Parts: sequence; C-alpha cells; structure tokens
Amino acid sequence: MKHARILLNDAPERGPLHAVEDEGALRLDDGRRVAFDAVRWLPPLAPVPRARSIFALGLNYADHAKELAFKPPTEPLVFLKGEASLIGHREHTLRPANAQYMHYECELAVVIGRTARHVKRTEAYDFVQGYTVANDYAIRDYLENWYRPNLRVKNRDTCTPLGPWLVDAADVHARPGGPMNLALQTTVNGVVTQSGNTRDMVFDVPFLIEYFSAFMTLSPGDLILTGTPDGVVDCPPGAEVVTAIEGLGALHNFIRQG
Amino acid sequence: MKHARILLNDAPERGPLHAVEDEGALRLDDGRRVAFDAVRWLPPLAPVPRARSIFALGLNYADHAKELAFKPPTEPLVFLKGEASLIGHREHTLRPANAQYMHYECELAVVIGRTARHVKRTEAYDFVQGYTVANDYAIRDYLENWYRPNLRVKNRDTCTPLGPWLVDAADVHARPGGPMNLALQTTVNGVVTQSGNTRDMVFDVPFLIEYFSAFMTLSPGDLILTGTPDGVVDCPPGAEVVTAIEGLGALHNFIRQG
Repeated sequence: MKHARILLNDAPERGPLHAVEDEGALRLDDGRRVAFDAVRWLPPLAPVPRARSIFALGLNYADHAKELAFKPPTEPLVFLKGEASLIGHREHTLRPANAQYMHYECELAVVIGRTARHVKRTEAYDFVQGYTVANDYAIRDYLENWYRPNLRVKNRDTCTPLGPWLVDAADVHARPGGPMNLALQTTVNGVVTQSGNTRDMVFDVPFLIEYFSAFMTLSPGDLILTGTPDGVVDCPPGAEVVTAIEGLGALHNFIRQG
Repeated sequence: MKHARILLNDAPERGPLHAVEDEGALRLDDGRRVAFDAVRWLPPLAPVPRARSIFALGLNYADHAKELAFKPPTEPLVFLKGEASLIGHREHTLRPANAQYMHYECELAVVIGRTARHVKRTEAYDFVQGYTVANDYAIRDYLENWYRPNLRVKNRDTCTPLGPWLVDAADVHARPGGPMNLALQTTVNGVVTQSGNTRDMVFDVPFLIEYFSAFMTLSPGDLILTGTPDGVVDCPPGAEVVTAIEGLGALHNFIRQG
C-alpha cells in the first residue's frame, strides 16, 4: 500500500491527513477519494514522538563515485541531514541566485519501523517500515571537501524532496530482489538524464542497517537515503525534475530561483 | 534559572519531570525539593513537536585546530548529530572495547528558542532559549578524515552527554561578555586537562546563528554545539570526566567499557 501525507487544497487548515493511493487517486481515511491535483503533498512521514535522524550516504554507487573521480568507499560515507530540508511531492526547491551548479540525486529512501540495535543483515528487512523516493539536491558551488558536504551544499531548506508516498515494506520485499533490484530514473524537463538500479549500491540496505545498528540505535521514523548512481546534471531555475524508482513512484519537483 | 529534566529514582515510572535548581537541590513543579542524587538526569531538553536538528562545529577554537595540526577554518565546519547519541548528567558513556583513543570535548551548547530565518548577528541572541554544557566525545580510532567525522566517531549511542540543566538565556546574556566570555574546564579523575574560554571561538554564537539561518530554518529546540578548545586527552574505562562551563554548571560523566 502507498501511504501519502497531504493537505487538502480546499481545506488546508484541517492539517496533515493520511491517504492511500487508490487507482490513480488518493483515498482519505474517511473514505473520500480526492484527485492527485486536489492536494498539497507533504513528506510521507508520520510525526514521531522523538527526534528523527536522517542519514544520507555519499558515493554509494560505484559509477557515481567514478563520475566524481573517486574510488568507491571501503566503509559507508555517511552524513546526517536536518528535517528542515524536507519537502513533499510537487513542491518547489530553491536554487540560490548565485549558484553555478546544482544537481539532483535520485535515491532510494528507507524508513525504519522498529527500534534496531545490533541487527544482523539477514534480519534487517524486519526493521523496515517502508520505502519512498528522495531527491537529495546538492549545490556544488559550496562544496569544499567531498568528505564533508558543507551544510550549505546539502542541508538547505527545501533541498530534500521526499515522496510521493511511503510504500509498505511488504510490497517491496515481495518483488524479485526486493529493494535491491529497483530501476532509478531521473528526467529534467522530460529528458532522461540519470538511469541506474539499486542493485549497484556499494553497501546495500541490509548491510547499512547492520552497520548503523552496531553502534547506534535506529528508531521508528529514522530515514536512510542510500545514495545516487551516476548521471547528475545541473538543474536550472524553472526546471521540472522527476526522480522515479520502480515500484515506488515518481517524485516531481520544480526548481525556483530564491 | 536552571532547568533540569529528570526521572525520580524512587518513581521513575512517573516519567520525565521538569525541575529547577534551587540552592543546591532541585525543586519540582509541585514545589517538592529533591536532592541531586535522588534523581536520574536526562538531557535538559523538552520534547519538541518536530524533529530536532543538532548541529556541531569542528575546529572552532584556533588553539584546538592548531593542536590537531590544522589552520583555523575560514568558514564554519559543521556536521549534524542524531538524538540517540544524547544522554544526561551523571550517566555512563560507552567506550568501544577495541578503541585506542577516545577524547572528550567540552562545548558550549546553544538551544534555539524561536524560529530563526535570515537573522542578523546583532539580533541573534533574541532567538536563544538557553545554554547548557555538552561533552561531544570522539572515538579517534574511527576517524578517516577530519572533514567528515565518521558516524562511528561522533554519533554513537551515549557519546554526547548534555546538562546538567538548561540555563535561561537572560541569565547568561546578563553577564559581562554574555556567552562569549565563559571559562571552560575539563577534569579527568579530578585532574585538570583542558582549560579555555568561549571568547576564543573562531565563529561566535551570533555569527553562527546568522550563518545557519541564512540558508536553513532554525526551530525551537534545535541545538548548536560550538566546538572545543585545545587540551583533549584519552579517557580510559572507569574515568570520571567533568566538563564545566562558568555560569552553566559541571556536567559529570563516567566512561564504561562496552
């Protein structure tokens, strides 16, 4: 099942609502069906009673590492992101006026469903609530060192679109290869600019859950953005950027100067 | 006023309680006074309705940068931390069995009180709720690159003691020099190993609030750990480490193998 979190365009004051995808429309919990364009899309994450950690992988596809003239890492390169960077499907991302190079990054996003500590990779999928699509924009101008994406590169408001919805883990795990065999594709203004497959990750999802939970507690609602394959290009103001992952959906985003 | 968040040793099931420091004891909201050793200390942070971002500065004291053979940075070196790393006053921090070098870092911690976006440094203090002491432990063994403290270095469970309490911003701002003129001191088993003063920060608190809020929204409850001066030494299992900041208090922590 695909779970969205939305505001109704004609009643945004009702606050965030849960809805599920239902044959090309959204079904609210009260049974009403609403069209995709009758809502504002929020990041598909329920509020959590504690702080959420958002982990993001750098250089986790060998071809992307090569594109950036790096060898693949021998240990996960991980950084944390702040929730203020998150926005939902069909929202606008701000490109700084003076930026020369801003690229998208289509990424499989994993949402943790159960408290995880010292989890073995063979049991890792039991701790996943679901999957969604992330676009982990980077403003390359501000990059001083690849090993530490400066917060101005990776943590700006609006620079991490997420959605459109959260897909139940069971739905993804039932596919051949599960989350580790999903095609990724990005288009900019309708032109395909990035194609990849999650099977090419250097460190796969079960490995990452084992690795993290060996020294940190992962809590329900925590998010892992698993890195992007090669094929990143500059996104000019006005561009429509669609990051899509097989079985999960297509996350639309619009670049605006600001 | 100094605000603590505690569990009562004899009634921990009552859940986290707010208390204020009152002449060497704690006063609960119901008026009862309890001794410092009658409580378990939690990080002095109220729950927030949204995710909290925890920002931490690297190399933000020139002498500490020099100690590590670096030039002071020309722009803040910032990383994010996860809430699972936080513990309170008088708790135990786990030292990995195979670690050769684990050092403390005594740091002034700033808690944001109001939503901040595009704040000028001259008004930055208006956005601060209060201050507390952080000990931002690092396991150096896992450090691959100073520019990206690997999460195994800086984000382990229990590796960021915080407290003992949150001191109201007004109390700190009323001091000469405010938060930018506070002595810091660390002792390990009673021996002074680190002495410094917040006036030696490369980027001071008003600068950091201006800098962050220029590209990110800071929200109530967000935390900024402002870096440590020189004088870091290894902390063996069994050590009692006390990080103290003038006007804020002394944060006690115990190192345990595990």
